[in-house]
Parts: sequence; C-alpha cells; structure tokens
Amino acid sequence: MVDNDNIIALASPSGVGAISLIRISGPESIEIVDNFFRGVEKLSLKDQQSSKVQLGYIYDKKNTIDKVLVTVFRNPKSYTGEDLVEISCHGSLFIQQSIIQLLLSKNCRIANAGEFTMRSFLNGKMDLSQAESVADLISSNSEASHRLAMNQMRGGFKNDINDLRSELVNFASLIELELDFSQEDVEFANMNELISLLDRISLSLKTLIDSFKTGNVIKNGIPVVIAGEPNSGKSTLLNSLLNEERAIVSPIPGTTRDTVEDQINLNGVICRFIDTAGIRSTKDEIESIGIERTFKKIKEAEIIIYLIDYSQLNSSNMDYYINYLNGINDEFPEKKLILVLNKEDEKSNVEIDSLSKFKPISISAKNKINISALKEEIITHINSLTSQIDNSTISNSRHYDLLNKTYEEIHKVKSAINDKVSADLLAIDIKQSIYYLGELTGEISNDEILGNIFSKFCIGK
Amino acid sequence: MVDNDNIIALASPSGVGAISLIRISGPESIEIVDNFFRGVEKLSLKDQQSSKVQLGYIYDKKNTIDKVLVTVFRNPKSYTGEDLVEISCHGSLFIQQSIIQLLLSKNCRIANAGEFTMRSFLNGKMDLSQAESVADLISSNSEASHRLAMNQMRGGFKNDINDLRSELVNFASLIELELDFSQEDVEFANMNELISLLDRISLSLKTLIDSFKTGNVIKNGIPVVIAGEPNSGKSTLLNSLLNEERAIVSPIPGTTRDTVEDQINLNGVICRFIDTAGIRSTKDEIESIGIERTFKKIKEAEIIIYLIDYSQLNSSNMDYYINYLNGINDEFPEKKLILVLNKEDEKSNVEIDSLSKFKPISISAKNKINISALKEEIITHINSLTSQIDNSTISNSRHYDLLNKTYEEIHKVKSAINDKVSADLLAIDIKQSIYYLGELTGEISNDEILGNIFSKFCIGK
Repeated sequence: MVDNDNIIALASPSGVGAISLIRISGPESIEIVDNFFRGVEKLSLKDQQSSKVQLGYIYDKKNTIDKVLVTVFRNPKSYTGEDLVEISCHGSLFIQQSIIQLLLSKNCRIANAGEFTMRSFLNGKMDLSQAESVADLISSNSEASHRLAMNQMRGGFKNDINDLRSELVNFASLIELELDFSQEDVEFANMNELISLLDRISLSLKTLIDSFKTGNVIKNGIPVVIAGEPNSGKSTLLNSLLNEERAIVSPIPGTTRDTVEDQINLNGVICRFIDTAGIRSTKDEIESIGIERTFKKIKEAEIIIYLIDYSQLNSSNMDYYINYLNGINDEFPEKKLILVLNKEDEKSNVEIDSLSKFKPISISAKNKINISALKEEIITHINSLTSQIDNSTISNSRHYDLLNKTYEEIHKVKSAINDKVSADLLAIDIKQSIYYLGELTGEISNDEILGNIFSKFCIGK
Repeated sequence: MVDNDNIIALASPSGVGAISLIRISGPESIEIVDNFFRGVEKLSLKDQQSSKVQLGYIYDKKNTIDKVLVTVFRNPKSYTGEDLVEISCHGSLFIQQSIIQLLLSKNCRIANAGEFTMRSFLNGKMDLSQAESVADLISSNSEASHRLAMNQMRGGFKNDINDLRSELVNFASLIELELDFSQEDVEFANMNELISLLDRISLSLKTLIDSFKTGNVIKNGIPVVIAGEPNSGKSTLLNSLLNEERAIVSPIPGTTRDTVEDQINLNGVICRFIDTAGIRSTKDEIESIGIERTFKKIKEAEIIIYLIDYSQLNSSNMDYYINYLNGINDEFPEKKLILVLNKEDEKSNVEIDSLSKFKPISISAKNKINISALKEEIITHINSLTSQIDNSTISNSRHYDLLNKTYEEIHKVKSAINDKVSADLLAIDIKQSIYYLGELTGEISNDEILGNIFSKFCIGK
C-alpha cells in the first residue's frame, strides 16, 4: 500500500512570510534536492548527517533561487519514516513556487492532502487514531480542543482499545476451542465467566461512547442558545459577551483572521452561539409554533440562556414563563438552562420568588451590569465538562461510530448466549467486534478508509 | 546599538498550515526554550550540538503543548549572529500562540519588524544593502524582481561601491596631505590626475544611477498604459491578456491569493496595467483635456499600447491619429509605443500605409486574434530591459538617492577645482561623498536610518 515515490509540498501556511518550509519525502528525496543544492560547508546532502542543518543555495543551472537551510532526516528517523528533506527558504511566493517547480522537474510529485502523515502511519510511526489526531491538532482553536487532540496523539484511548480487543480475542479463542471440541460436549468457556467478561467490555465501550458527547462539543465548540422573546436583549447580550472577549488580543499576527463573529473562547473552550432570533411566543401561540421552533434550536445546544425582559415582567406573564421554563427542563433534563433577567436597571416591581428554582441571574446587557456573574455560571458548566476530559475521551465521529458498532455486536453476543445460540454463530459476532476495533486503531485498514481519513488533512501534512 | 535582549516571532506566514516556525534569538534564547522543552533524546538544548535538530515536546507545567522539532544555532553561526533557536511546531493558531506566550513568560519579547535581519547586520553577518535585499527577496513576485534582490543579497554592487569609496578615500588623503604641507606650496595631488579620477568616479556613479530606471520598473512591475478612445476595446484587450495568463496555474496553494486583477507576469516580469478609461478625444477637444489627461497617464508608463478601432478607421480620422501618435513619440521618446489596430476582423477598407512608421499590429481583442503578436512585441521590450540587469543594477530608492547625492558632491568638487577653490574646502565635499557611500553600505548608520529601513520588513524576519 505504501507508494514508493517521492512527494513534495509546502508545509508552512500559504502566503508571504519571513520563512517558508518545503518538505520532500521518499526514497530519492535526498538525491533530488542534492541536484539543486550547493552547501556552504561543501557537503553534499547524501553525506550530510541525519537531523543536521546545512546553510546553502538552491540554484537552477546558473541562477541562484535562494539562500536556504536544508535539513536531512534519514529513514526511519523522520516524520514519514522515509528519507525526508526540509528546505527552509525565504517566504516569497515566487521562491516557494520556483523551488517546488524545480524539484518537480526531477522524480517527484505534489503530495496529496495528509500524505506525509499517511506514510507515517503506513510505515508504523503512529497508529491510525494518532494520525487522525494530527489534523485535529492543527485545527484546534482552543485549549480544550487542543488538549483532546494532544491526548489522542500521545496514545490516548489506544490502550483502552487494545485491552478491549485482546479480551475479545481471548473470548473468541475460547469460543473457537469449544467449537473444535463441540462433538465432545466439553465446555471450555464457562458461560457465566463469559457473560461477566462481556458485561465488563460493554461497560468500557459505554464509557468511551459516552465521552463522545463531551469530546465532541469541546472539539467543535459548545453550542449555546440565547433564547427569549424579541426585545428581551438577546443580541445586546451576545455583543456584551463578544466585546469583552475581543479586548483580549494576541500579539501574534494572523490570530484574529480565523475568529468568527459569534464565537467566544471562555476559559479555554470555544462557545458557539446559535441564533434564535424572531420567535415571538405570545400566550396565544404558546402551544404552537413558538415553542416548537425554539425547542428545535435548543435541541442543538449544550447550554440554554433564556432571557426575560425584567422591565416587562409582571404577575400575569410570570406563570407563562414558569411553564415555559419547566417545559424546557422536562424536555431536556441533561442540558444546562440559565435563566437571565435582563434590563435589571429598569426592573418592574413584580415579586420573583416563584422563579427562584431556576436561580435567575439579573443583568443589564446594555449597561454591562453583572455580565460577569452570567459568565461565571457558563464557565462553571464548561469546567464540569472539561473536567471530564481524560486520555479516554473520544472526539472523532469515526471512532464513535466504530465503538457503537462494536457495542451493538457485543450486545448481540449477549442476547445470543441468553438464547443459547450455537458457538459458531457467537464467534461471528465476536470477530466482527474485533474487526471494528481493528479499524479504529488502523490494524485493519484499506485504501478507502485511509483515503477518507487523510483527504480531510491539509496538503503538506 | 545591539540590544542584548531576547526576541521571538512567528517566522512562517501567519495562518493555519501543516507546520509553523517560531524563532527566538538572543543570548538567553537557548536557556529560555530549554525551560519548556523535553527532548526525546533526553538532551537539554544547552548540550545540543549547533545546527542539529531534536524531536521533543514543548510543555507548560504538566500540559504538553506540542510535539516539535527544535534546532539550535550557536553564535556566531546563526542568521542573527546570536544564539538562535528555531521551533518547528504544528501549524495551529492555538499552538503558535501558546508557544509564543509561554516563551514570553521568560526573559524575551516579541521582535520588531525586521529585527532579526537588523541584528544580522549589526553583528556583521551582512552589510546594509544585503540586509535590505532580504525584504526585497521576500516581496519579489516575479523572476526578474527576484533576480534583482538575489544579486543584491549576494553582494551585488557592493564591490562597485567599495571601489568608488576607496578611490575617494585615497583622493581625500591626497588632498589632506596637501593641506598639511600647504605652507610649503607642495602639490601632492596632481590636479589633472585628480580630475581624471573624478571623471571616472562620476561615470561609475552615473552607470549605477541610470540602472535604477530599469531596476525600479522591474522591481515594482512594468507600468503599461492601454490608451485609446472609448469603445476601441481597451478592457477587452486587457481581459484577453489577463485570461490567457490566468490559465497558467500553479500547484501551490496560496499563489493566487496575492495576484492582482490587472497584473500579468510576462516572461518573468510583472506588467502592471494602468487604467486610462473614459477619455474621449474628439477632434474638437484634441488640443484640450483629452491629450492632457492621457499624457499624464502615459508619463507613468514604460510601455504605451495605443488602441485604434480598425472598423471605424477612415481617411478623415487617420490624420488625427497620426498627429496624436507623433505627439506621443515627440513628448516621450524614451517610452515604448505600440500601435494596435483592434477589431481587425471588422476592419474598414481604409489604406493604412501612412501608419506604417508606427509598425501597427492588427488584432481582435474580442476574438483573440493575433494577441500573441502583441504579446511578443511587449516581451521583446521587456527582454531589452531585463538584459540590462546585472550585479550593479540598483532598485532601491534609498540607494538611488544616496548615489545621486554623491554624484552631486563629486560634481561640486570638479567645479571647485575648476574655480581653484582651496583644498580644505574640496576636502569637505569629498568627505561628504564618502559619508553618503558609507550610509549606502551601512558602514555609517544610525538608529533613525536603521529604523526606517527595517520598519518596512515583516515581523519574524
């Protein structure tokens, strides 16, 4: 499966900068660069020590293209596990392009997306879930999503999976043994022990599967709905939350380029705000579209901020709100509901004791009163999520799917045992489970799976 | 003048990519990175060989921030001539930012624009004109502008300047000698020899100064005016020229990002098209605003493409055009005028012999007929420009100014000799010339000059 040709790509971000990095990997990579390199130490690259940098010139016939640093990494001590050369050149588009074009004139081609990392995987430098974490690491935009990716890169739940897999393999071999001796009516696999083993495996799978909920929202940003009637101050609140965070600027150019209008980073986690504008739930419509449409938005959320206009709150609409909020809690018991009374500086005289079960926070979004208390409440919930991150937290939907499939197979085996199904049928389900876990770590892989995974990478990685 | 602190910057282009490069330079740079680095070879950076790369982890307390490659360059064998560390990390914004923030917590600060190169200059790794070429090299966007910058980086006209300068120093010392013995009426400096020396110096200066015209248009793009009356097909022609070149795409992402609507690269040189839309020169207005406004645009150009609508050409407007074109040639004898007869597929029956002195090219911009002949004509002129590029071509307006000032001083000295001005006055002018040439190479420099030069660099270089 490993292509044995030479691949080249720009590895640094595209655009103009002080320095750009070009990587070339493959059996002839050193030789290819050597054609166009003249080192100041008069050392040809083939004689250059591994992991050593040499200053020199890239030239095309008589023309010097650039003064560069060239590092040679020799198989297997390189990222790809092949011979690999890194050229660090001046970051002009013309130079990047000229050097790549020059090397393409020899025996190499532009790398596909993720091809360097795919070769790393295929050459046994990392397992598949580690390879996948490389793309996550590059796209991580917060401390928490970065931690998820880093855990995965450093091994992550690999040990959990390997333990599960070897237990299943063990289980399967016991079943097979029974099959071999089935004529003799010997029972090698103690059924009770087997069932308890299956329960243990189920539990481990369940833990991994459940971690996806947290892993996924942390990786993709915690969805926060700001709900409430028109004029309750939803946009003003969002702006207050955004503005404050915007003040934290970074000294690094380019950081702001990727920030998105309605995302903020709270305590190292990205919160994505989901718009719920334009839903008016007058009393008449309570039971109809109003609730329905808001509930649809709420379904996508992890946190619901429900905003009530404190200046308009009175004893007659109070019951409506209480009903509405109870409705949200009943429908979505696992979501975090935060009740916010806005415009507290113009608050009505109504008694709010009956709202106390929702622990309302009084603020003024416009005048930025008590925003920090609201933020504190959000952060408390975020912390309860991030505290769940550990090495076994999964955040990749491919892994999630495979774990679920495995879980189902295990469940089938348990039912089959209960139904006293014959051992040879049991063995099939068990083997299928083992197969799924193998796909997860990449012990079992094919071109299609790999193509799918690595096509999501950027070129140069 | 050399600050002795430690500076850090992102050196690769900003944005997300496979790999980003962070550089830190200064006496404690190695120590600073060592605080946060754990190499897989268990080698602390202070014990790491110079120009050697080590794989390892950047960590903050217990958290691993990234798996990185770290290269150590020791004073003086580094770009800046100081101890310098390069960290090659995953190209996520979060990681770039985290690593830089982490290192900033120790004894370092974000580098100013061009500060790495400024230190390189101040530590004697390159002269000032070479340092200036680094910024030119990074912003070079064509083969020709790249060649200009590369020539300058590799020494360029430095030898010419140094030769001039030592001749002037020699000259000055002869004059001073004469001053010392002035009571004795001894003439050490043979006046005829001196004058011939001054002539030689003048000539060298003139050659360098004259090269600026070419160097400058090549560096900034050759300005091409497409002139002609409305409906003669100016925009269509521009599109034809642009479209054809657009077809040449590059396999490198980011290349197109910086292309500008009305620039094309012809034979390795950027042509910048200058808009002359909306000038109608009816016969009534010939002498008034029409010509004046076009001529103003033409003044900025190196090449003038004058377009006539061949379908509308007749014996009565023929004379007008001939007059107009003669007017351009008379006013701008040094510019390249190309006469283009457009819509040749709908051409009138008029006899065009009287236009032959302008060597007209008949085309159809719309139907792309004979565009290549026009392009050939432009390229021929471009080649006549690029063939003039050599190591002594200057393209930097600071150099141009200083050379002109020197030239004027030399001229003053010659006049002074003619006027039999006393030697001590001559000496002042000569010293001023030497001073200017010293500013050019950076032998004489001050904070203001350097601040000016390096502020135009990007951060990280």
